[in-house]
Amino acid sequence: MVLTIHKEITKIEKGTIVTPAGFKAAGIHTGVKRKRNDLGVIYCESPASAAAVYTLNVIQAAPLKVTKESIAEEGKIQAVIVNSGNANACTGKQGENDAYLMRRATAEQFSLPEHYVAVASTGIIGLDMPMEKIIPGIKKLNPEATEKSANQFNESILTTDLVIKSTCYQTTINGKTVTMAGSAKGSGMIEPNMATMLAFITTDAAIEPDMLQVALKEVTDKTFNCITIDGDTSTNDMVLVMSSGKAANEALTPEHEEWDVFVELLKQTCEDLAKMIARDGEGATKLIEVEVNGAYDDSQAVKVAKTVVGSSLVKTAVYGADANWGRIIAAIGYSGAVVDAETIDTSIGHIQLLKDSQPLSYSEEEATEYLKNETIKISIDLNVGNGSGKAWGCDLTYDYVRINASYRS
Amino acid sequence: MVLTIHKEITKIEKGTIVTPAGFKAAGIHTGVKRKRNDLGVIYCESPASAAAVYTLNVIQAAPLKVTKESIAEEGKIQAVIVNSGNANACTGKQGENDAYLMRRATAEQFSLPEHYVAVASTGIIGLDMPMEKIIPGIKKLNPEATEKSANQFNESILTTDLVIKSTCYQTTINGKTVTMAGSAKGSGMIEPNMATMLAFITTDAAIEPDMLQVALKEVTDKTFNCITIDGDTSTNDMVLVMSSGKAANEALTPEHEEWDVFVELLKQTCEDLAKMIARDGEGATKLIEVEVNGAYDDSQAVKVAKTVVGSSLVKTAVYGADANWGRIIAAIGYSGAVVDAETIDTSIGHIQLLKDSQPLSYSEEEATEYLKNETIKISIDLNVGNGSGKAWGCDLTYDYVRINASYRS
Repeated sequence: MVLTIHKEITKIEKGTIVTPAGFKAAGIHTGVKRKRNDLGVIYCESPASAAAVYTLNVIQAAPLKVTKESIAEEGKIQAVIVNSGNANACTGKQGENDAYLMRRATAEQFSLPEHYVAVASTGIIGLDMPMEKIIPGIKKLNPEATEKSANQFNESILTTDLVIKSTCYQTTINGKTVTMAGSAKGSGMIEPNMATMLAFITTDAAIEPDMLQVALKEVTDKTFNCITIDGDTSTNDMVLVMSSGKAANEALTPEHEEWDVFVELLKQTCEDLAKMIARDGEGATKLIEVEVNGAYDDSQAVKVAKTVVGSSLVKTAVYGADANWGRIIAAIGYSGAVVDAETIDTSIGHIQLLKDSQPLSYSEEEATEYLKNETIKISIDLNVGNGSGKAWGCDLTYDYVRINASYRS
Repeated sequence: MVLTIHKEITKIEKGTIVTPAGFKAAGIHTGVKRKRNDLGVIYCESPASAAAVYTLNVIQAAPLKVTKESIAEEGKIQAVIVNSGNANACTGKQGENDAYLMRRATAEQFSLPEHYVAVASTGIIGLDMPMEKIIPGIKKLNPEATEKSANQFNESILTTDLVIKSTCYQTTINGKTVTMAGSAKGSGMIEPNMATMLAFITTDAAIEPDMLQVALKEVTDKTFNCITIDGDTSTNDMVLVMSSGKAANEALTPEHEEWDVFVELLKQTCEDLAKMIARDGEGATKLIEVEVNGAYDDSQAVKVAKTVVGSSLVKTAVYGADANWGRIIAAIGYSGAVVDAETIDTSIGHIQLLKDSQPLSYSEEEATEYLKNETIKISIDLNVGNGSGKAWGCDLTYDYVRINASYRS
């Protein structure tokens, strides 16, 4: 069954957030950041079903409040306005007013009710929004359905990211072609760096907002919530999905016979973006993927995977190309998951390091060679149950310290 | 009352683990490490009341099992044998046998029942113990009650530690002079670095083992359990207290009118050692102390303090002398503690940065100047309750990455 699903989902190499039917995008430079685009919009021709998940941080930036209010009204969004360079966080009453003003200006620009507009911000926290740049910028936004305009949007949401993060997949549901695409920004605000993560996903699948929320929650727990750069959780994180319904499939619900195909489509899209974010973590030179099998259950497997991929000692060992299984087993031991201290198997790539918690003889040269790759897979079998899960992260490097220890001014 | 207690406890500048009556120590070089002492013993003239706490890591090294068994027998310990250079962890059945052999050889050397001997190890994990060096070493140990022999012991337990960690305090209980001293090793094994923490505390106070355990548990939660170097928990951590009873005070119990004095004596000793460990964290240039007030309760205050002091972004900001309150408030927000997003006050040293979660105007130059000190105090008031607590850590530096990314061989 899993195989069947994978066959039906095709990566669209040149696809962008405007490839799904009904979507347009724009991105411009308003001067909040020095050079790169800093204001963008995704626009849908008609009100799109919307679902979103937000940071678990108790301290949440003003735009999150405004977006939650918009979605709560009808579950529909037609435009999402995003700026980078200023996070509008810890800005009090003024910040709230500014987020509402951004929503209103966007609604006016596209002649929409205000609650059809979502707002997202990323950048410096604690500084008032430069509204004298943002508002005139919003009035200049002219979204198009071109690859160029999508890439202008993709650039407009970046902060310390080194690369644009974009992906696109296609499948069929009820014999109709369904397309989904995503754009994300990752780890790091310009100053101070706070690992804000934003992801925007567009699709033309037909689905009601509450069903979309169900799918997003399920998939987020297996993708975006399984990456860690440095364990710090931002005040501004947001994942927003909009579906235009223009694929004209029968509306998706968990009872729909191809519900699993849609969830898998969303999972592929989110996993791609999540891995791109991890690989582009501040100072990172390598993507680390940890796969755990044989856990008590799936959530414990994810717990172990996240603990291992988040361990500073594992991260520095990978940076140093050191097959340091001692740090891996120690992280497993303090993960809080059910573990039998005598039954742990561990491999790096195809090289098995531990069997029943005991070191095997392996070639250090071969292991060091493997650890020089840009993607490192650590596989763990706890042999206590049938749970499995994955998590992604990156190595901890001199550059991480350099980026984060440098003065803001 | 707190003031009274503090008055009665005096720091003994030249005091060591052999200053409390009844204790002797030794430390020698056997060749497990290249140069520095690597085998040591603390010996008590008579069976001492013993209490210990151990790592919460599910993967525990063999010596911990042996020490637990020894203490379980009678609650008495007369000798603790400690080696550095090899942790005897993840060494299976052979490792257990070796730990038992170390206990037996020590018992024979000092003509003691085996269950009067505790064993502790720190160093490389996954390698069999070099028993051909350890056993002849044990036979050479000749403990004395001199400052020199205490310092030889202090050195014998170190791994990547840059400095010896030792402290000593005196007070009176029932009019009798009571002395307590401690020796510890901190963050970092030679290779691979795993932040093993060992602490050994001697006192001549009269107290039964179970009461000593009560005091140790209470104090550990406020001291050793409040430090974090990199969030990784070792397989070998152990804190062991031995009391000879030679001060001849009335045996201490929570009902004793000076119980609080004894607990405070133990707290001062443990806090000193904990702060020394944090300051000497791998690659550290600064000790960071986070004090939280106004939390819902004391345990939530400690939770917030530990989250802030453990944040990689706060640690790098302190390294870079950057008064980055945004990272502090973000860490408070994801600590999991009860927080009101509108009422957080934050200071660095005497400089207040946030009032009611809003940035104040302060001199960046003054803040940067303060952050160049070797001890950095971050004070937080959550203004939601009366809980208070502290945690200690260190900055995250290039040297941390260098130390931990270097090859084991």
